Amino acid sequence: MAEWLAQGSGDPGRVHTEGRIARVAVEDARERVAELLGTRPRQVVFTSGGTEATNAASWGATRARPGRPLLLSKVEHSSVREGSSRLARVALVDVDSFGRVHPGAVDEAIEQCAATGELPALVHCQAANHEVGTLQPIEEVVEVAHRHGVWVHVDACAAAGHVPLNLDELGADMVSVSAHKMGGPAGVGALVVRRGLRIEPLIVGGDQERARRAGLENVAAIVGFGAVAEALADDARLEHEAVQARRLTDALQASATAAKDVQVLGDRERGLPHILCVAVGGVEAEPVLLILDNAGIAAHSGSSCSSESLAPSPVIEAMGADPERSLRLSVGWSTTDTDVEAFAATFAPAVEQLRALRS
Amino acid sequence: MAEWLAQGSGDPGRVHTEGRIARVAVEDARERVAELLGTRPRQVVFTSGGTEATNAASWGATRARPGRPLLLSKVEHSSVREGSSRLARVALVDVDSFGRVHPGAVDEAIEQCAATGELPALVHCQAANHEVGTLQPIEEVVEVAHRHGVWVHVDACAAAGHVPLNLDELGADMVSVSAHKMGGPAGVGALVVRRGLRIEPLIVGGDQERARRAGLENVAAIVGFGAVAEALADDARLEHEAVQARRLTDALQASATAAKDVQVLGDRERGLPHILCVAVGGVEAEPVLLILDNAGIAAHSGSSCSSESLAPSPVIEAMGADPERSLRLSVGWSTTDTDVEAFAATFAPAVEQLRALRS
Repeated sequence: MAEWLAQGSGDPGRVHTEGRIARVAVEDARERVAELLGTRPRQVVFTSGGTEATNAASWGATRARPGRPLLLSKVEHSSVREGSSRLARVALVDVDSFGRVHPGAVDEAIEQCAATGELPALVHCQAANHEVGTLQPIEEVVEVAHRHGVWVHVDACAAAGHVPLNLDELGADMVSVSAHKMGGPAGVGALVVRRGLRIEPLIVGGDQERARRAGLENVAAIVGFGAVAEALADDARLEHEAVQARRLTDALQASATAAKDVQVLGDRERGLPHILCVAVGGVEAEPVLLILDNAGIAAHSGSSCSSESLAPSPVIEAMGADPERSLRLSVGWSTTDTDVEAFAATFAPAVEQLRALRS
Repeated sequence: MAEWLAQGSGDPGRVHTEGRIARVAVEDARERVAELLGTRPRQVVFTSGGTEATNAASWGATRARPGRPLLLSKVEHSSVREGSSRLARVALVDVDSFGRVHPGAVDEAIEQCAATGELPALVHCQAANHEVGTLQPIEEVVEVAHRHGVWVHVDACAAAGHVPLNLDELGADMVSVSAHKMGGPAGVGALVVRRGLRIEPLIVGGDQERARRAGLENVAAIVGFGAVAEALADDARLEHEAVQARRLTDALQASATAAKDVQVLGDRERGLPHILCVAVGGVEAEPVLLILDNAGIAAHSGSSCSSESLAPSPVIEAMGADPERSLRLSVGWSTTDTDVEAFAATFAPAVEQLRALRS
């Protein structure tokens, strides 16, 4: 990326040499991303990130099938929830206490939509939850929806690069991914659109991305996305990263639950390896975050996209837990044992201290 | 930018140290961009680029004022044209042979809309044309539109950073700018929204940018946008760049018109200093581009966003010239006299050679 920024990039849409060189770099990155995701390069449409991709999925579906509702679980990311509810009537599917969607509940909800008027334009189902890490039964959800002739969008922003995905096998109609969520750069993501599906782009006015996303390509960021995808496309590397991540989050979990009244949220067994979410009884998350920050630990509370608003997390609420008390910890390729030890030394005493102040 | 990429950026929406450091960098860049544009930082909403910004302007206006038409000149960028026509009925305003919009024509078109039903939701008027460089009378267009109570979006993507702008004085309701068009990085731009105007974002699902554009901030690119804005915010520097650019494009114009039957398109007198567009009689643009490319000159034909489609440029067509024959040359801060000399040595012989082949 630094090289592309230093030398400057040609416009990949041009016939001149600089443009053709940039085009090769973009197409090379597209191949790498496609390989990581188990799909063909032509299916990959680069966007400015996961949020744009999920917005584009709702847009494309509602433009192609206007007037129909959108179906989504109560634990979808805010970009799926808000990107849907402004465009169409929304039907919500409940989740269990792990935050897991049940294919039977999706089936029922589709039938209910059909009974009251129209089949949904689209079912949104995340591959894994972005706050608690619970993996979702996307294969079954795709099967159920397709049985009814309903399209499926899988928000794989939290999951891609952390667990193996084979999108061609999965057969979802659209899949969103984000580069920075897998250790790549911010400012780039992709909407994977299955072969044969033509949807109206969210951003129009240029023929970039085979007329599926207008605007000059962000070549440096796309190259960065390609680089992280290449690193992770090797199954052994993905597995290695996952094992490492799980070891670290297991250690974080042990330290966190060493404090009294700390409950793990989500399904750690069938969940993302790099995320740990805990509910801390009797203290607000905010002061815990500040004490952790003083110890050099960047953690956060609530949704991964709503900390500015300070609104309670609808995900945690849908699971039946207290949305004010959640603390989300995630590890990446740069997280060390020392970081985990710093958490262990800080967390339980901080919680005890805050509880003592309150009583 | 390289530093931000190397060290990694925190999420500017978080309370932890890494997040707060990133937030400071984003807000610092916002101040610099605001200063360049003559507005306040709060009015600047960062987007993934100019295309997203112009799409967001049409979206915001049609959501706020549904059912009303959009008014635009025939020479607007494809992202304005296509981003409008899919959302509302579009009324087009003719231009003169320089590609210039006349405020009187905008006035008439607004009155015609009003007479046949509804005032426009928005008037789009570019600050300068992206293909031929002609500066538009945006002050008068804003005045005319506001007299009718109609909002105005100024697409300043081609103009910003090349001619002085004072957006608070201009008083447009929305203004789009693009970083890469002024020598900054790709992947970032801004929609400047006037004080007090609340419009629905194009991309939703997060509270970034004061809930006016969702999605993790692309901190490195925003920092790069801030850097180029800072360099150009100094009036002397902008003037210096403009003088340099005009000297180079004047030289290009002299070389180009040294060949027979080559006509300058657009208004060079009251036009952008860094763009030259010529119509070349009797030859197609494509082979000229290839010969120039062999000489190390990256030029292009037609619209700045539609070379992939090979469709004729509607801008050139609206001016009454032959859209198949246009050649667009632009210079930047890295263009040298040697580049201009290479063009002089190549262009006229290439045109003569191609004409000889044809006859």
